[in-house]
Amino acid sequence: MAVSIDYAALLAPDLPAPAPGWQGRPPYNFIGGHVDAASVPVEDMIAATATALRRDGATLSTYGLESGPLGYRPLREFVAAKLKKRSGLSVSPDEVLITSGSIQALELVYQLLCCPGDTVLVEQFTYAGTLSRLRGLGVNPVGISLDESGMRADLLAAKLAELKAQGIRPKFIYVIPTIQNPDGSIMPEGRRAELLQVSAEYGVPIFEDECYADLLWNGERPPAIAAMDEGRQVIHCGSFSKTIAPALRVGYIIAEPGLVAQIAACKEDGGTGALEQMMLSEYCWSHFDDHVDKVTLLLKEKLNVMTEALEEHFGTTAEFTAPPGGIFLWVSFPDAVDAMKLASAAAARGVAINPGPDWSADAAPARSRIRLCFGNPTHQAIRDGVKVLAEVCHEEFGVPVRSGNIERNSQSN
Amino acid sequence: MAVSIDYAALLAPDLPAPAPGWQGRPPYNFIGGHVDAASVPVEDMIAATATALRRDGATLSTYGLESGPLGYRPLREFVAAKLKKRSGLSVSPDEVLITSGSIQALELVYQLLCCPGDTVLVEQFTYAGTLSRLRGLGVNPVGISLDESGMRADLLAAKLAELKAQGIRPKFIYVIPTIQNPDGSIMPEGRRAELLQVSAEYGVPIFEDECYADLLWNGERPPAIAAMDEGRQVIHCGSFSKTIAPALRVGYIIAEPGLVAQIAACKEDGGTGALEQMMLSEYCWSHFDDHVDKVTLLLKEKLNVMTEALEEHFGTTAEFTAPPGGIFLWVSFPDAVDAMKLASAAAARGVAINPGPDWSADAAPARSRIRLCFGNPTHQAIRDGVKVLAEVCHEEFGVPVRSGNIERNSQSN
Repeated sequence: MAVSIDYAALLAPDLPAPAPGWQGRPPYNFIGGHVDAASVPVEDMIAATATALRRDGATLSTYGLESGPLGYRPLREFVAAKLKKRSGLSVSPDEVLITSGSIQALELVYQLLCCPGDTVLVEQFTYAGTLSRLRGLGVNPVGISLDESGMRADLLAAKLAELKAQGIRPKFIYVIPTIQNPDGSIMPEGRRAELLQVSAEYGVPIFEDECYADLLWNGERPPAIAAMDEGRQVIHCGSFSKTIAPALRVGYIIAEPGLVAQIAACKEDGGTGALEQMMLSEYCWSHFDDHVDKVTLLLKEKLNVMTEALEEHFGTTAEFTAPPGGIFLWVSFPDAVDAMKLASAAAARGVAINPGPDWSADAAPARSRIRLCFGNPTHQAIRDGVKVLAEVCHEEFGVPVRSGNIERNSQSN
Repeated sequence: MAVSIDYAALLAPDLPAPAPGWQGRPPYNFIGGHVDAASVPVEDMIAATATALRRDGATLSTYGLESGPLGYRPLREFVAAKLKKRSGLSVSPDEVLITSGSIQALELVYQLLCCPGDTVLVEQFTYAGTLSRLRGLGVNPVGISLDESGMRADLLAAKLAELKAQGIRPKFIYVIPTIQNPDGSIMPEGRRAELLQVSAEYGVPIFEDECYADLLWNGERPPAIAAMDEGRQVIHCGSFSKTIAPALRVGYIIAEPGLVAQIAACKEDGGTGALEQMMLSEYCWSHFDDHVDKVTLLLKEKLNVMTEALEEHFGTTAEFTAPPGGIFLWVSFPDAVDAMKLASAAAARGVAINPGPDWSADAAPARSRIRLCFGNPTHQAIRDGVKVLAEVCHEEFGVPVRSGNIERNSQSN
């Protein structure tokens, strides 16, 4: 007799919806932190893997590669060197914890600090994964408005004072100061100092996420907030997903050694993938800077293709500020446009976009905004996809009134 | 002014103790699922990585390697083929979810089914990680006694009846039927059928952990319980950690497609390490069987060295049954021996062992038992470490009365 267990009666509550069957990605994929397929340094990765495996391959026989719970030591040494050179952040390899992508870095910090009912302060517009995951944990993300310099320190202080009056001490202030996600801005040094001041005043740490910070068009940037931290106010994280490849799943957390040891104890996964750590440690010492120069050039070209396509097909209907780096563009439409409706209508036409409300602590301010990722699609896919998106937007909301050269010619007459 | 946040006031409750600074492993390391360092197939791994990267390296630019949320499809195809050949289990690649080691496989099943206060049934002696993690989640693991055929089906049925009378429906029955951890036994087919019968009768699924099942001295084994499952009573997991290398962090879950899709949705990690999945998929098709034949031979030799050393230095003080495969030996000492005390005294002498109570649902039955892993240490380290362990045991508990050839000669007079 065939028996079937009634799993519905056994499943934990509030599980995410089952993963849909894999149909591949849509033809015009403007979502996800993917990178340019042609830029993956396959041959250099092969050489680096061979060198690293011939040197330390026997240590695959043990958990942790004989490097302990913080991760493969040669990679921690590279991360420390990279941060000193690029972010002005001086740390020892014992202050670096290698994680399975920055997703795990975020998860570990939530696990370290958060309980259901806790409050966390975030930028009004921020990484959708942080918002959804915090809410999934029963944590309340409270948005602080941004200006062109990032999270407003005055509003942050006001909110902390208001919460303090209610007896609420937020667990941390989550910021993405260098290539803010989604708006792409870079927080000036002065604002970083102001945030540190407010953090100190209220005794609430800053969690600085710099997973896009290495993708700057001109390389110029202020020091990481963690680099300006005179105490131990800042927990910092980053990733190799956007500079090398997202499928590798390698990121890192920087904090003072005592805190790193506490976070490492929470990382009960048997270690992060060994081949990735070994390959990256070997590859990055000799190739990271050159590779980043190459991919940022490719990304800047794709951004130009995307902004030109938006101007051609949306005209003044689409407002945006071209970012100084990264892989995404934050676009604002007239109030008539409902980004959630636009996203589902566009999906039906093969165009995937991130609707603003998913990337906003409060849905309303992002009602007519979308995030467009340009890292993975080809130039042609960007041009064609934006054209389809404009058609869908016109069909749904009547704007842009008309798209393409015709209108722009008629305007020029 | 240097500011220091008072993290003690911010940390979540019940965090594990901070990870100690890395001092390397003890000279006589008889703990942990490590394997033989010399058996890591470094050159074949290098070749496999190169082939896989030249074929699919460009897909590293996207999360999931264009294979979707279940993991790299060529590896899922190999896992399906391996299970059919070795475990008698016929599944499609869409019933295979690749995980970051079997640790994540276990975590995902806990997340799928368990809430604080839930009950789970386990073998009286079982994997310490399962016991500690379930308790960490507020789940109550209830032990069912083992006999030489594994978990006793009659006692399982009695416990389920008792719990049912209390209105308690356990979330699953966790068993390690093929190379039971820690006792190394193999559950006969008849007992597997009995467990399925009881599972069906009470509507409680079986979670079958076969992460050691490929390491059999003679390859003979009954089908996986999942292979005998006519409905969908069994969730099955396995790993490449013990057959290839633990640092790779690649395991898998097998369940019916709907359940796999639900578990995949809970796996919010951006994917399992890509290089590991690519390398293994390429390596295993051509080398897995030969490699497993080679390592099981090495492991059997190490087991012989360990049992000879135990007989030499402990004589009749150490009782054990040599397992038909795997990487560990379950040893029983006279009641006078407190395994927890022995473990700490031995650690001070550079010998790491697993005290029985850590591997037992109830501490008492395992008070005088220990688990000794022989996969990683050299023959010499096994001989020397067991000799030191016998000295420590004698110093602490007076047994063995005397160790080494002297006594055995005097006995023979």
